[in-house]
Amino acid sequence: MNMRKIVADLHAELVRYNLVVWTAGNVSGRIPGEDLFVIKPSGVSYDELTPENMVVCDLDGNLVEGEHAPSSDTAAHAYVYRNMPDVGGVVHTHSTYASAWAALGEPIPCVLTAMADEFGGEIPIGPFALIGDDSIGQGIVETLKGHRSKAVLMQNHGVFSIGKDPKAAVKAAVMCEDVARTVHVARQLGTPLPIAQDDIDRLYDRYQNVYGQRSPR
Amino acid sequence: MNMRKIVADLHAELVRYNLVVWTAGNVSGRIPGEDLFVIKPSGVSYDELTPENMVVCDLDGNLVEGEHAPSSDTAAHAYVYRNMPDVGGVVHTHSTYASAWAALGEPIPCVLTAMADEFGGEIPIGPFALIGDDSIGQGIVETLKGHRSKAVLMQNHGVFSIGKDPKAAVKAAVMCEDVARTVHVARQLGTPLPIAQDDIDRLYDRYQNVYGQRSPR
Amino acid sequence: MNMRKIVADLHAELVRYNLVVWTAGNVSGRIPGEDLFVIKPSGVSYDELTPENMVVCDLDGNLVEGEHAPSSDTAAHAYVYRNMPDVGGVVHTHSTYASAWAALGEPIPCVLTAMADEFGGEIPIGPFALIGDDSIGQGIVETLKGHRSKAVLMQNHGVFSIGKDPKAAVKAAVMCEDVARTVHVARQLGTPLPIAQDDIDRLYDRYQNVYGQRSPR
Amino acid sequence: MNMRKIVADLHAELVRYNLVVWTAGNVSGRIPGEDLFVIKPSGVSYDELTPENMVVCDLDGNLVEGEHAPSSDTAAHAYVYRNMPDVGGVVHTHSTYASAWAALGEPIPCVLTAMADEFGGEIPIGPFALIGDDSIGQGIVETLKGHRSKAVLMQNHGVFSIGKDPKAAVKAAVMCEDVARTVHVARQLGTPLPIAQDDIDRLYDRYQNVYGQRSPR
Repeated sequence: MNMRKIVADLHAELVRYNLVVWTAGNVSGRIPGEDLFVIKPSGVSYDELTPENMVVCDLDGNLVEGEHAPSSDTAAHAYVYRNMPDVGGVVHTHSTYASAWAALGEPIPCVLTAMADEFGGEIPIGPFALIGDDSIGQGIVETLKGHRSKAVLMQNHGVFSIGKDPKAAVKAAVMCEDVARTVHVARQLGTPLPIAQDDIDRLYDRYQNVYGQRSPR
Repeated sequence: MNMRKIVADLHAELVRYNLVVWTAGNVSGRIPGEDLFVIKPSGVSYDELTPENMVVCDLDGNLVEGEHAPSSDTAAHAYVYRNMPDVGGVVHTHSTYASAWAALGEPIPCVLTAMADEFGGEIPIGPFALIGDDSIGQGIVETLKGHRSKAVLMQNHGVFSIGKDPKAAVKAAVMCEDVARTVHVARQLGTPLPIAQDDIDRLYDRYQNVYGQRSPR
Repeated sequence: MNMRKIVADLHAELVRYNLVVWTAGNVSGRIPGEDLFVIKPSGVSYDELTPENMVVCDLDGNLVEGEHAPSSDTAAHAYVYRNMPDVGGVVHTHSTYASAWAALGEPIPCVLTAMADEFGGEIPIGPFALIGDDSIGQGIVETLKGHRSKAVLMQNHGVFSIGKDPKAAVKAAVMCEDVARTVHVARQLGTPLPIAQDDIDRLYDRYQNVYGQRSPR
Repeated sequence: MNMRKIVADLHAELVRYNLVVWTAGNVSGRIPGEDLFVIKPSGVSYDELTPENMVVCDLDGNLVEGEHAPSSDTAAHAYVYRNMPDVGGVVHTHSTYASAWAALGEPIPCVLTAMADEFGGEIPIGPFALIGDDSIGQGIVETLKGHRSKAVLMQNHGVFSIGKDPKAAVKAAVMCEDVARTVHVARQLGTPLPIAQDDIDRLYDRYQNVYGQRSPR
């Protein structure tokens, strides 16, 4: 199954960009045309992930295929797939700089053109939510539905990002940490200059539309 | 002997997660059913560690087997094994962010759900203690006995972490540095939001019990 | 064509020194004796760059050779080549620390002898400029023409660096991030000591002339 | 010649611990029994260093053997070997955190037991000195002669470290950056707790003498 390989392989990007330690982050991908998604098995280290040990769940988060338990964050992924039909990939990390903003409960302000391009403005904060029911999933969907940003900083927790496919969601997670780090450093140095809303809009529009018709930068 | 291989291999995780420079950190593991533990030899670089050059000590820290002197931190490991019978693994590092909190003498406050999961609250500070007798071991045991946290920040020194086996102790050392870094960054940005004690308790309970019955996240 | 290989290979230095994430930075090199330059294709990951998939553009930024679209930053590179005939290489990154200074709109002050050697003083700020026309290229050229520095921090954006060839431009990008990080850390600790203008001049002169006649340090 | 291989290989440790970018740091080693030392060639990248392309200089810094020019820092190394007969190895880097303290002109205070062990107290600041004559060498020797610390932070410049052999000097450079980083982070968090002079003395004495008779930690 191709989506198993895509999801298994994309975890290497989380490792490459230092978004995860131990087994703390996960990628999932919707299986096109079916009410199913592939997700990381729980407690398996990134070195050992293969297409074969990925697990398949239905949109209620029930295990459909696989020998391991699904990631403990499966319910949140499932909620997103159930409620955002255009989403084809979901990523969760506790990446350092983004999680620091999350611990503060502050959105990352849009002071970099790369943020305007990719997120269309600030990266928003989602609610504090406990694991165990649909709270996390609801918080993600409420924050991201209709929002330009493809990433949300869940308060005191970490990042969830979404995309049309798992690769796009991983890209959003990578870019989120990158701008979280740069804006943090800028804030240590002083007060970053704002970008006018008008300019943010122009950058976002161009990046999503002009470049969207060709290949992404 | 299997525990020699387990302990030798786990040092690679200290290197992978940048918890150590030169030869400054060490892992040990209790040999099940015997009053012995395996520990890193002194002054051997991480690249050269093999099951064969690991050393075996008794619970007073005396060398029982091995051609190298045991780690200079052996007395502290031995004290922990003598006084905490459930501990099967001990790790010591000077990892950057955790050691910075240790230099301050301040516990790391629990402002991340991952801390609540893993440490059940703040990561505590142990006393300032000199090497050369049982002071360090005593400080570790006094701080961690009955404490939820599996890691202690020894004042002006570094981290000791414990676990049911060496892998669990390494995981605690890795997670300790990860949250030490994230909370540091959050503190630079402003004042991290606290998590209610009630929520910390719920997260800790769930992570230790519900997930404990399956595989860890 | 040799310049294709040079440009393809130099992208590995951007990765090695953590100047880029995903596909966000690019290197170009002027083809000696022709009004053409080689540049990174758009949206191709650094792992997949080869001499063959590099693209060739004329000095107006039009694609002359290649199966991929050129980098979305091609217009800025082209403007520099058109207006600075001595420039043989251009690099663009969003490297973290340099981009943080750019978000502030503050030049990096010259408080390190390595900066005096390499940049001859502070690293300047260029204007805020939107992608889509020649604004970015104009900002680069206006800032760097006649300036000792081979790197400019484009406000709220990132770094452009230039050199007599692509390798020199990559070196400037690497050194720019290195000093941006060191001076950031120094500023967190307190107030870095200035270097007297006279000493800056002597260091710059020696590095460019005395060592320039042999091989660079 | 064995010292060529030792010196060539040790540069990999500078790379491994991120103490250098491009070609900016260097290691040298005195050839036992001769008034000569081996040093990095100028402008050769770390990937290309071999025992064969190392260069040999006399104690006035004149090239004796080798096809490349010696490192541009050779005069400083030579001055140290001429004036400190017990020194068998010298290392120079612009490592980030140590250079930040150097830009401030502030010694790194001894707030970590690892600093007491290795440096016996604070890491001192040397004078601002220009390249081109013996100023840098004099500054190193004046600062380190009779000092416990094997590393000096040359103001606005970077680190020079010394040792009985090149490996010991590299270890001092690695540990210097490690504690420079940890103490920086501690200072960002608040005011690190001092260690009593008495305890520093005991730690230093034990590390140099008790462990010195066996193998280093």
